[in-house]
Amino acid sequence: MKEYIKENEPRFVEEWFSLLRIPSVSSQTEHKADMGRCAERWRELLLSSGADRAEVMPTGGNPVVYAERIVSPDLPTVLVYGHYDVMPAEPLELWQSEPFEPTIRDGRVYARGADDDKGQAMIQAKGFETALHAGAVHCNVKFILEGEEEVGSESLIAFCKTHGELLRADVILVSDTSMVSAETPSLTTGLRGLSYWEIEVTGPNRDLHSGHFGGAVANPINALCKLIASVTDADGRITLPHFYDDVEELSADEKAMIARVPFDEEAYKRAIDVDEVFGEKGYSTLERNSCRPTFDVCGIWGGYTGEGSKTVLPSKAYAKLSCRLVPHQDPERITRMMIDYLQAAAPTGVRVKVDFKHSGEPYVCPIDLPAYKAAEAGFTIAFGRQPLAVRRGGSIPVIPAFEKILGLKTVLMGFGLERNAIHSPNESFGLDMFRIGIEAVAEFYNHYK
Amino acid sequence: MKEYIKENEPRFVEEWFSLLRIPSVSSQTEHKADMGRCAERWRELLLSSGADRAEVMPTGGNPVVYAERIVSPDLPTVLVYGHYDVMPAEPLELWQSEPFEPTIRDGRVYARGADDDKGQAMIQAKGFETALHAGAVHCNVKFILEGEEEVGSESLIAFCKTHGELLRADVILVSDTSMVSAETPSLTTGLRGLSYWEIEVTGPNRDLHSGHFGGAVANPINALCKLIASVTDADGRITLPHFYDDVEELSADEKAMIARVPFDEEAYKRAIDVDEVFGEKGYSTLERNSCRPTFDVCGIWGGYTGEGSKTVLPSKAYAKLSCRLVPHQDPERITRMMIDYLQAAAPTGVRVKVDFKHSGEPYVCPIDLPAYKAAEAGFTIAFGRQPLAVRRGGSIPVIPAFEKILGLKTVLMGFGLERNAIHSPNESFGLDMFRIGIEAVAEFYNHYK
Repeated sequence: MKEYIKENEPRFVEEWFSLLRIPSVSSQTEHKADMGRCAERWRELLLSSGADRAEVMPTGGNPVVYAERIVSPDLPTVLVYGHYDVMPAEPLELWQSEPFEPTIRDGRVYARGADDDKGQAMIQAKGFETALHAGAVHCNVKFILEGEEEVGSESLIAFCKTHGELLRADVILVSDTSMVSAETPSLTTGLRGLSYWEIEVTGPNRDLHSGHFGGAVANPINALCKLIASVTDADGRITLPHFYDDVEELSADEKAMIARVPFDEEAYKRAIDVDEVFGEKGYSTLERNSCRPTFDVCGIWGGYTGEGSKTVLPSKAYAKLSCRLVPHQDPERITRMMIDYLQAAAPTGVRVKVDFKHSGEPYVCPIDLPAYKAAEAGFTIAFGRQPLAVRRGGSIPVIPAFEKILGLKTVLMGFGLERNAIHSPNESFGLDMFRIGIEAVAEFYNHYK
Repeated sequence: MKEYIKENEPRFVEEWFSLLRIPSVSSQTEHKADMGRCAERWRELLLSSGADRAEVMPTGGNPVVYAERIVSPDLPTVLVYGHYDVMPAEPLELWQSEPFEPTIRDGRVYARGADDDKGQAMIQAKGFETALHAGAVHCNVKFILEGEEEVGSESLIAFCKTHGELLRADVILVSDTSMVSAETPSLTTGLRGLSYWEIEVTGPNRDLHSGHFGGAVANPINALCKLIASVTDADGRITLPHFYDDVEELSADEKAMIARVPFDEEAYKRAIDVDEVFGEKGYSTLERNSCRPTFDVCGIWGGYTGEGSKTVLPSKAYAKLSCRLVPHQDPERITRMMIDYLQAAAPTGVRVKVDFKHSGEPYVCPIDLPAYKAAEAGFTIAFGRQPLAVRRGGSIPVIPAFEKILGLKTVLMGFGLERNAIHSPNESFGLDMFRIGIEAVAEFYNHYK
């Protein structure tokens, strides 16, 4: 299969570039037409990659692309998921080349979406094509590509609810995650969940003179800080009663597996320029950022924030609050717990309003799934070494949604690397990893029976 | 003297209006020429009010207006201070009439500066003129008017340092404060001081993905909230060791005097729409907002503050912090204390930088000063009742600066009212209070010997 990949690489890259040239930014309405163009381009590419049926299907939002190659109802079915939308390219001035004109420098492709998820979804399509050419596909294959992953997957989730039969499968395969490093290939076996809220603290009905009122009227910024500070203790643990009730403690085996992941804490600290790491007492950095829940304020604002100084006792203060959640924690239960806590703990003299914004369930992939084993075999052949099974700290809300709606587990066969700078200026993807990924996916099919 | 005021009122008002028509906004550079025009107009008015010498004197910034009527070196000298600059009129759309075209509605003059401080400074000038006409001025009188009060009085403070002889006097008289209410005339005998800082908390060197890093890296917003929360306790007291060392406890007499000020706490809460007042345990609202130090966050910002949600572990968080200070507290000592505390208390994993922005000393006027007694007599005659002596919560940095540089106490003979809406749209001043004020000032001269 290596040979097929080598021979066809120029065409594979040209096809990939044809997607990267379409600015399919889902969060910017001026790109509405580009969403349709990108979906249509994917339809063509999936057909030419070996699907025997492909169509662009409408939803309440951006369309989804559906394709399939059905060999026999007796064979298992793999549903490949990806997304064709990308994050905004801004700030444009930080890009070294045009974000929507892919450019190769030093063996890497630079463009918005080079990795997330046009590059990785192309690896799936071309891995499938390669396996097909080698007669190594022993299952039915379906593809579903959505155009709203970067804005919450609302339309896809609705689509899944009404298209259960169309999407019937045995397992889902996704390339949209990253590995520990290029030297340490890994498969993602867990994702954290997430709950996100916005809090509004109201003191007086207008901004007051801090000289005339200060000391006698509660200041909503002071109050908000007290509230936020009270959610965690000095050891980095969340103080809400019952918050950890459903959190499973890591077993000795799991701790040992995490300890085997190559990790240089000094280099980690240097890379982000902090003197010390900080997190929940009793856990290592890799445990903290993947297997433990968190409470992070993502934004805060209130009062006078301009130049110089203004002596004001403000009327309102706001913050965006989030918790990453781990398997067995229920985002709805955590949301109720957090809202109840913040309202009950509101200091005297202020009113607290908490709005739920969004949430995602945590996810775990059992490593004894046949599809996981096949992915492991594919990685082992393509990388020349067995991949580690690691839980990651991020959240992909659509993955647990698939489990809930379609009853399907997902195998996360991601080829991303930290240096690819997804969501940031100068996103890139290595051509070598593109080739290795295609081979790993082709070998997945070869081993999935 | 009432008669002279009545006869001359139309001219007094026209003179006052001639000042209000000049948009002498010190913080907006496009009004640079208006500053000079306003100073020159004041020079003319002070001469016509009875000064025998008046000049516009240059400074490093806007000029000061100096005028004097020296009767004899053997007599005591009163130095009258005021300011001819005003706050910006914006937001203009909230004004019911042009801010720089004074308009009379229901016996009130509406214009920017109607009160602060063109109206009140005119009361001083016309009170002096009235007393002079009645042969009731038994002292030398000097006037100094600055054009930068609303932007920090920097040039005036420098001017005082180099013009000690010119400004030599026994006491300073100022009309630039407000009274408890129209029914409860009062003289301000104390002002709080102020220190103002900006804090910057830095975590990682760039915004991080809260899924990949959350839980393992200190979040600067969480850290800033912990820091701010720790500055006060649940009883509203400031926790910094030695913070209260120099604060004098209110005597039983002072507490009794404050308790005599008419104050309706329910109406106060309704006016600003809070369910409860909040402040330092053990003190009443009027004690808290005038005689006790405070810690108020005036602004806070960091991370993602736009619409919707972004899961980010931000690099930085900021806040504008302020303390109102009471007599004997030294802003420099408090600044050192606050900076040392915040840096020492910085949570693990973040760096804290605190910048001093500005400060003002607190101020107390002894009520046995001859000039205070004369002001009290003037109020008693003009209002028909004895004024209360009250300490106010605001700060006028130039008043303690006069004490420090010129060695002079100031008597604060202010005629403002909350409803006058200084610094806000539709600033106004009552014509009745204009007349009463002029009489009170004229009677001050009559009683000051």
